[in-house]
Amino acid sequence: MADQFITDLNCDMGESYGAWNMGNDAAIMPFVSSVNIACGFHAGDPAIMKKTVKLALQHAVFIGAHPGLPDIQGFGRRDMNITAEEAYDMVVYQIGALSAFVKAEGGTLHHVKPHGALYNMAAIKTSLADAIAEAIYKVDPSLVLYGLSGSELIRSGQKAGLQVANEVFADRTYQTDGTLTPRKLPGALITSHQESLAQVLKMVKEGKVVSQQGTEVAIQADTICIHGDGASALAFAEQIYHTFQNENIRFK
Amino acid sequence: MADQFITDLNCDMGESYGAWNMGNDAAIMPFVSSVNIACGFHAGDPAIMKKTVKLALQHAVFIGAHPGLPDIQGFGRRDMNITAEEAYDMVVYQIGALSAFVKAEGGTLHHVKPHGALYNMAAIKTSLADAIAEAIYKVDPSLVLYGLSGSELIRSGQKAGLQVANEVFADRTYQTDGTLTPRKLPGALITSHQESLAQVLKMVKEGKVVSQQGTEVAIQADTICIHGDGASALAFAEQIYHTFQNENIRFK
Amino acid sequence: MADQFITDLNCDMGESYGAWNMGNDAAIMPFVSSVNIACGFHAGDPAIMKKTVKLALQHAVFIGAHPGLPDIQGFGRRDMNITAEEAYDMVVYQIGALSAFVKAEGGTLHHVKPHGALYNMAAIKTSLADAIAEAIYKVDPSLVLYGLSGSELIRSGQKAGLQVANEVFADRTYQTDGTLTPRKLPGALITSHQESLAQVLKMVKEGKVVSQQGTEVAIQADTICIHGDGASALAFAEQIYHTFQNENIRFK
Amino acid sequence: MADQFITDLNCDMGESYGAWNMGNDAAIMPFVSSVNIACGFHAGDPAIMKKTVKLALQHAVFIGAHPGLPDIQGFGRRDMNITAEEAYDMVVYQIGALSAFVKAEGGTLHHVKPHGALYNMAAIKTSLADAIAEAIYKVDPSLVLYGLSGSELIRSGQKAGLQVANEVFADRTYQTDGTLTPRKLPGALITSHQESLAQVLKMVKEGKVVSQQGTEVAIQADTICIHGDGASALAFAEQIYHTFQNENIRFK
Repeated sequence: MADQFITDLNCDMGESYGAWNMGNDAAIMPFVSSVNIACGFHAGDPAIMKKTVKLALQHAVFIGAHPGLPDIQGFGRRDMNITAEEAYDMVVYQIGALSAFVKAEGGTLHHVKPHGALYNMAAIKTSLADAIAEAIYKVDPSLVLYGLSGSELIRSGQKAGLQVANEVFADRTYQTDGTLTPRKLPGALITSHQESLAQVLKMVKEGKVVSQQGTEVAIQADTICIHGDGASALAFAEQIYHTFQNENIRFK
Repeated sequence: MADQFITDLNCDMGESYGAWNMGNDAAIMPFVSSVNIACGFHAGDPAIMKKTVKLALQHAVFIGAHPGLPDIQGFGRRDMNITAEEAYDMVVYQIGALSAFVKAEGGTLHHVKPHGALYNMAAIKTSLADAIAEAIYKVDPSLVLYGLSGSELIRSGQKAGLQVANEVFADRTYQTDGTLTPRKLPGALITSHQESLAQVLKMVKEGKVVSQQGTEVAIQADTICIHGDGASALAFAEQIYHTFQNENIRFK
Repeated sequence: MADQFITDLNCDMGESYGAWNMGNDAAIMPFVSSVNIACGFHAGDPAIMKKTVKLALQHAVFIGAHPGLPDIQGFGRRDMNITAEEAYDMVVYQIGALSAFVKAEGGTLHHVKPHGALYNMAAIKTSLADAIAEAIYKVDPSLVLYGLSGSELIRSGQKAGLQVANEVFADRTYQTDGTLTPRKLPGALITSHQESLAQVLKMVKEGKVVSQQGTEVAIQADTICIHGDGASALAFAEQIYHTFQNENIRFK
Repeated sequence: MADQFITDLNCDMGESYGAWNMGNDAAIMPFVSSVNIACGFHAGDPAIMKKTVKLALQHAVFIGAHPGLPDIQGFGRRDMNITAEEAYDMVVYQIGALSAFVKAEGGTLHHVKPHGALYNMAAIKTSLADAIAEAIYKVDPSLVLYGLSGSELIRSGQKAGLQVANEVFADRTYQTDGTLTPRKLPGALITSHQESLAQVLKMVKEGKVVSQQGTEVAIQADTICIHGDGASALAFAEQIYHTFQNENIRFK
């Protein structure tokens, strides 16, 4: 009998804001096992947070907080030179805000995944990573920390005593050292669904990825991020979901 | 032996913002029994919320969330025509945010008191009052709702099953119907510390206030609000605190 | 020879924000004669303002500032209890901000039209209307004030010495006293393009509108507002534009 | 007869926000020749901008716009990884906003000085410096650009065809290469008023500064920045003002 693999498919959601819509949350929700919900600093507002939490509970997916930098105009994607203490403070605040909606709806917050520039900075800067891990631990030590696979953030989470999930990306290429190819470089994005699927399957089943340089690299793939916006996001979500079913890959 | 009275003395705190300071929290904290901490919408930011929560825990006072309208420039004092659902959403969000800091520091959130225009609108508009009470109840039914004595907000809290605290003001005059004299009218504010003290003692001991019209009016005084800013705020806080001690009035 | 009528067709634009898109500015721009560009308080940000100004200049349409309340989450649609002085200040600020982009691109700002709740409040509250008119006049007395036809805002503009444009709506019904049917009431919106067109033509050619009650009411129609979002906005813009050409109605 | 020197003494003002006060504008205004007024992104709001512009006009000092990063919580002091185009956009917007208040009060905007992290990043990053200079030039080519003496921003201003003012600091020490001692290093700040005054006089009269290393370094001192907040700011402003009068140093 074939091996059974267990994984997690996550997607950023609740990224609308006020009168503005983004993404396609309701359509994609059935095909993922966990969601990361924006908390109002880079996207999301109280009304959207509540709506997205309800939707997630209806689909029984794991709910995570997705805290970002206080930069709504820049969608939390611009690096800001914040201190470790500022990172701690903004993560505590945002986890708390989302957590209240989850509690009000009778659910339980499952994880925390920093967003955008906060995620990227915490992947390489130990002081920020430690501060974020501490913030999560002090609010609720049972929360799982989602971070870039093999990054400083993962190490900080482990040091702090948190359960961690090494995150990999379906549509990004990797370098020989296991890091993501920077978005600015050619070939950073995988645009073919077939290639994305092949990469995901290899990561989940073998714990390996073929780097842009053609070498096989070991990679820990506890959770796979797919994107919810863009024209073909829904089609890809359906495809990866059905492929997992066919390949006997289960969601935890 | 003299009767012993029990009351609560509360003060709004954590009203600084970013690089800007307001109030005199550290000095006044020893003389109150509960504080209402701004949650970032009308004042306060994550750094200030953390600092104020720590200070409150050091003094072992009851910690409350002080949610306001999303109007930082107007300090949450300008009425906004929000829906009941918007009120619900913004109260859930802000309670959650503050709650996380309290939890991270090992404390327990005790109460919620809406701020400024949100407080005033909820005192007379049932739909807003109900929404706020529901928000509090759904986040944590053990939280106490502080609202204007005898107001719609108090009634909504009771209907929702919350413990409530009828709030009275040391430095405001009252009308024959038990409502506050509007700030715009002459004589709305009591500027004499002696008169303020006399009013407070009468409210606590007799459950009565002498209205601006000279009549005695019944009033429920579960908690007394004193103000933390202004030149003489600290002096008055000390005075009322010591008067309570002399008069055998205890904090709950 | 038939009479020739002159009118103005205006549309709110630049209502995207940060990473979020709204409306269909580039497609609708060819069919209008003037645009009202959001200035960052209820929608729009510096990048979007620049882009929209450039687009408007390419199409040689009149550019107006579209100042709103400081309420990005509520899209400036929630009444706020601001003072007349606060209205003055926020209008000066926003005209200036947009004006700088127009100047930087070599254009000239033509008009100012308040947005949403600010527009509606100024239509009936003289103190706000006066403050807005004064703000416009003091920044540039040659600016045209667009306001609800026959409203307080129009009167305040005239008192202040401004040129005014009485605005009517293609897709809203009117009452016997010439006011708009409130959005909450049944029949407030005209959903048939044919009925909208007929109403517009009657307003432009005869200066009259048939009220919801069936009576003919005199109405001053210096400029007609069409909406830029919604599924059929573009189709209606094209239709009204071509109808004007066929009916010998020219843009000023 | 002694030589007569001409200089400019500038101070950042209008840094209050909403209900929060900062600085001591009215007291310091009589002792400076130009002010830089915050424009709402890092400090200041429309009400404060108007008030500060009026105060400056009463004292007949030169009025400058003081645009900052969109970071009110961080007071514009945290580096943000913005693009050159974003820098251009935010500078155009803020100059325009302040300019409208100046125009409404019958004054003329004189200069632009970027604030905080925007100032520091533009001092060394050519693309940002060029974008800022272009923004100023396109809004009004007669505006003077204030920038760190000898910095990239000064060079970009000159390239763009702007008049520039090389800014020096009364209370900061300098390195052998003419740059400021970073704030984090010991001895970065001069706390003695006498030493500050001596440094300023040497810069103005001789065009030289004694570096922290003890060497004489050439420095262009077109305008001197003094700080408006802090306990002794007013005393120092008075002192430097009177010293200039005694030393026959005139304001331009």
